[in-house]
Amino acid sequence: MSTDTPVAIAPEVDEHIAAAVTAAGGRLVDLDDAEVLVWLGGNDDFPTLPDAVRWVALRLAGIEAFIDAGIIDDRRQWTNASGFYAENVAEHALALLLAGLRRIPVAVRDGWDKGAIDPAVRSVHGSTVGIVGAGGIGRSLIPRLRACGAQVIAVNHSGRPVDGAERTVPADRVAEVWSQVDHVVIAAPSTAQTRHIVDADALAALPSHAWVVNVARGTLVDQAALLDAVRSGAIAGAALDVTDPEPPTPDDPILHEPGIIVTPHVANPSSGLTRTLAPWIAENLRRFRAGDELLSTVRPGSRW
Amino acid sequence: MSTDTPVAIAPEVDEHIAAAVTAAGGRLVDLDDAEVLVWLGGNDDFPTLPDAVRWVALRLAGIEAFIDAGIIDDRRQWTNASGFYAENVAEHALALLLAGLRRIPVAVRDGWDKGAIDPAVRSVHGSTVGIVGAGGIGRSLIPRLRACGAQVIAVNHSGRPVDGAERTVPADRVAEVWSQVDHVVIAAPSTAQTRHIVDADALAALPSHAWVVNVARGTLVDQAALLDAVRSGAIAGAALDVTDPEPPTPDDPILHEPGIIVTPHVANPSSGLTRTLAPWIAENLRRFRAGDELLSTVRPGSRW
Repeated sequence: MSTDTPVAIAPEVDEHIAAAVTAAGGRLVDLDDAEVLVWLGGNDDFPTLPDAVRWVALRLAGIEAFIDAGIIDDRRQWTNASGFYAENVAEHALALLLAGLRRIPVAVRDGWDKGAIDPAVRSVHGSTVGIVGAGGIGRSLIPRLRACGAQVIAVNHSGRPVDGAERTVPADRVAEVWSQVDHVVIAAPSTAQTRHIVDADALAALPSHAWVVNVARGTLVDQAALLDAVRSGAIAGAALDVTDPEPPTPDDPILHEPGIIVTPHVANPSSGLTRTLAPWIAENLRRFRAGDELLSTVRPGSRW
Repeated sequence: MSTDTPVAIAPEVDEHIAAAVTAAGGRLVDLDDAEVLVWLGGNDDFPTLPDAVRWVALRLAGIEAFIDAGIIDDRRQWTNASGFYAENVAEHALALLLAGLRRIPVAVRDGWDKGAIDPAVRSVHGSTVGIVGAGGIGRSLIPRLRACGAQVIAVNHSGRPVDGAERTVPADRVAEVWSQVDHVVIAAPSTAQTRHIVDADALAALPSHAWVVNVARGTLVDQAALLDAVRSGAIAGAALDVTDPEPPTPDDPILHEPGIIVTPHVANPSSGLTRTLAPWIAENLRRFRAGDELLSTVRPGSRW
């Protein structure tokens, strides 16, 4: 392309996004002169768009409020950051699973106790991991697990085969999956149907070397049953980025059980967001300039 | 294949290996009747081999002692388990890097401190990782990192391009790599040339958000300089499966610095080995029966 693309960043210009936009062929302008708007705010103060704006990049993953407010129109392209967030959360899920299998928290707490730690270390390599919920997060996790030498059994609503999964099972048959996997990652939306999808029966069916990872919502796991299962040795451990209730009270046993790792809902950290989001915005600007399909396109009436 | 392959497991039959061999089309026999020997012992009590043995599978990665004792001959195939160990150590390196970036040890120590942890969480996604040493471990790590959305700059002796690396730099130019990467994983052999390859100058050249991971040998890192760099904020942290000296004394500051994760040389755990090694042996037996090339073949005079 010979000319720069005029891009507005609002409501305030952010240094990381600005640098990425410039590097990707954008030129920073006010909204009145813009062809692209990178909107870093919420829906309340969303501006009236000039007709010349052909693409609006929203920084959020869940954009129900924008849809409900009638902001998303069909006169231009709209993108959110759901793909970016999915990659980020999938990475955290892998980090939690590996930390558990490799007994990193035990080493952090107990020091150089090779006699105790060495026999307890396990590999994800050669294992089968069940992923409950094959939306963006689950689908981002699959290639990571496969590169680590694991097989994946995916569980989704329809049972429609998921790329990269050895097998896909519909949610109404999830009960048959627990005994067929070594470990399980929960990445499904929170609904009436998924509440306590990991319950006492599921935990009893999992193998005793199993790790349970939850990066979705705390309510998908029966936390009392999970504590019982870890304490009794029915499963090897759990690694949770979400809890029920959340935040947990300081005396919640979930925070004090050595076999359970808890991170404070940081799979998709809200701080420092624009720094990590910037390369994603740049990639989409390159695609926009080349006329290629944009990542994470949103359409009017879309539901997440 | 219509008939089972006669396989001896010695000096003692191991249940995990036996189950894997049977599942892969083997039939357990004494050495006198064997076509394949899975040898789980050392070199001292290695038996005289019947001519009918066409393949010997050793369970070790480093087999210098077998070579020095003249045990490895050219009358049959020999394999070791270097590929298996490389996968295992690469997995541990990824686990350490992700645990550091995702601040899992901080969460383990400090509990649900979202205000402190959220701003500190980083992603390997979108980063560039330098791998110093592109032998089996380094080459096993590359596809894992790429699946996580990272780029790799490899450093090896020759500078000959390594598959999957964005760029390969010869070891004598390693100094130029430090400022070009976000994080670095040390996976090179311990030699006079690699001693303290991560020294004060290297640490000063790395970006302040860098994590240093060492799964090779403790002597490759100048540990005093590393402590200084972490304490001063010159780098973000270090995650070490090996130390200098090893084991560290209980009062070694390396064990008590919050920005440093230490696991007790368990990247390739010696306990429970046959359980995790079994699928690897099974895969090689399937290849043997199909006439395919075996994994981790060893030849007389090989050097590791």
